[in-house]
Amino acid sequence: MTPKRPLILVTNDDGISAKGIYSLQKAVASYGDVVVVAPDSPQSGMGHAITISEPLRLKKGDFFEGVEAYSCSGTPVDCVKLGIYEILHRKPDLILSGINHGANTATNVLYSGTMSAAVEGAMEGIPSVGFSLYDFGSNADFNDAMEVVKTIVSGVLTNGMQKGVCLNVNIPKVPPGELKGIQICRQAHAFWEDRFDKRMDPFDKPYYWLTGNFVDQESSNDTDLYWIDKGFVSVVPTQFDMTAYSALDDLKKWKL
Amino acid sequence: MTPKRPLILVTNDDGISAKGIYSLQKAVASYGDVVVVAPDSPQSGMGHAITISEPLRLKKGDFFEGVEAYSCSGTPVDCVKLGIYEILHRKPDLILSGINHGANTATNVLYSGTMSAAVEGAMEGIPSVGFSLYDFGSNADFNDAMEVVKTIVSGVLTNGMQKGVCLNVNIPKVPPGELKGIQICRQAHAFWEDRFDKRMDPFDKPYYWLTGNFVDQESSNDTDLYWIDKGFVSVVPTQFDMTAYSALDDLKKWKL
Repeated sequence: MTPKRPLILVTNDDGISAKGIYSLQKAVASYGDVVVVAPDSPQSGMGHAITISEPLRLKKGDFFEGVEAYSCSGTPVDCVKLGIYEILHRKPDLILSGINHGANTATNVLYSGTMSAAVEGAMEGIPSVGFSLYDFGSNADFNDAMEVVKTIVSGVLTNGMQKGVCLNVNIPKVPPGELKGIQICRQAHAFWEDRFDKRMDPFDKPYYWLTGNFVDQESSNDTDLYWIDKGFVSVVPTQFDMTAYSALDDLKKWKL
Repeated sequence: MTPKRPLILVTNDDGISAKGIYSLQKAVASYGDVVVVAPDSPQSGMGHAITISEPLRLKKGDFFEGVEAYSCSGTPVDCVKLGIYEILHRKPDLILSGINHGANTATNVLYSGTMSAAVEGAMEGIPSVGFSLYDFGSNADFNDAMEVVKTIVSGVLTNGMQKGVCLNVNIPKVPPGELKGIQICRQAHAFWEDRFDKRMDPFDKPYYWLTGNFVDQESSNDTDLYWIDKGFVSVVPTQFDMTAYSALDDLKKWKL
């Protein structure tokens, strides 16, 4: 008797036509039965948004050779929900998101649609991983990243995942073959110092583009930013429980 | 010499015309100088989304008597960023979000635009609080909730806030004057069991409305859901660091 092949749900936030999701589904094709449900257009920066004020569209298509795949009008989290409850009608064994074009280190985990899809998977009790490559180019080289995907997916299938936890995997941009290794670490406390590029439209009304610089406020050797910068893949176990347990006792002294 | 009045930035996710934000800015008017920056339309369920693929619009208006106020075309997190970096040009002393029409207990903190605005405030190092009333009605009675706002804001101004932490305050729907008290607690591990209402459009193409039931998987007496259900206000200290510290050691044993 052969063991049952794992059912793997694949999504992303760059949209179904991005090179990153093509690379991801290809990397894991031999690990199980893959079903792709991904946004029909880029959804970067959508965080954990869900679509509640309008209906969702879903379209089956031949996006990847021999793979069941759907594009969706919603967010990455919508894709996970539709995948589980409307397409598969059962929980997959694994949810993979990415490979994102651009890093999702540090506090970017909160803005990231890629990682929010993985966090949604953790909320569903499904082992889930978000992958991001620190290269924003639409033609980025995903070959080494695909090997990282295989290593991590093997690890998850072998070891399982702690309840309520998913993985945030970031891969640095290095020349082919020069990844230094994999480091388990924590989310850096780095932040955007936002700036707005204010412009005037042809009707003399202002509009604003969000821009800014990402600033690392730590100089600690146990964060994702530290290891990415050193040429290592960072793996941060990430949870949906946002309770600040360390603040509970202090707050109780407030006598509210 | 009189002490400097705190500068208070107020936002929400139901939009600037919602009764909840009217109640919030009114409740804190005497506590400091209030500036409101809120979405021009409802942004419920937008989580930590930011607007990066299109520009933002900002419109100053007489939304609240005697209060500097702006409506914004973006998400609640966009409002916080625009408020700090484009309108105030400095960090306010306090960011308040809400009062949301509907509860943001348990894992809803991740989907909630109201709470994401407060989490963004925490990322900026600013004491921040999200308030939600467990009453979805557009004409909900916010009177008791306004008293809760005053109590919490007094507490924050007196005690300050631990770095990286904001507060998630949920207020139950009870008859006037019957709130039982305030409880400091943790985020419940309750989840949406999603369903999609599939319908056919006039052109015989399917579309899907996200619906579902919220299911509490715990029977624990230290969660926000537990206390809300008992008629108490729940206060959950909430952090932006999503690292699952308890999983770090286990992952290191994987030998990746």
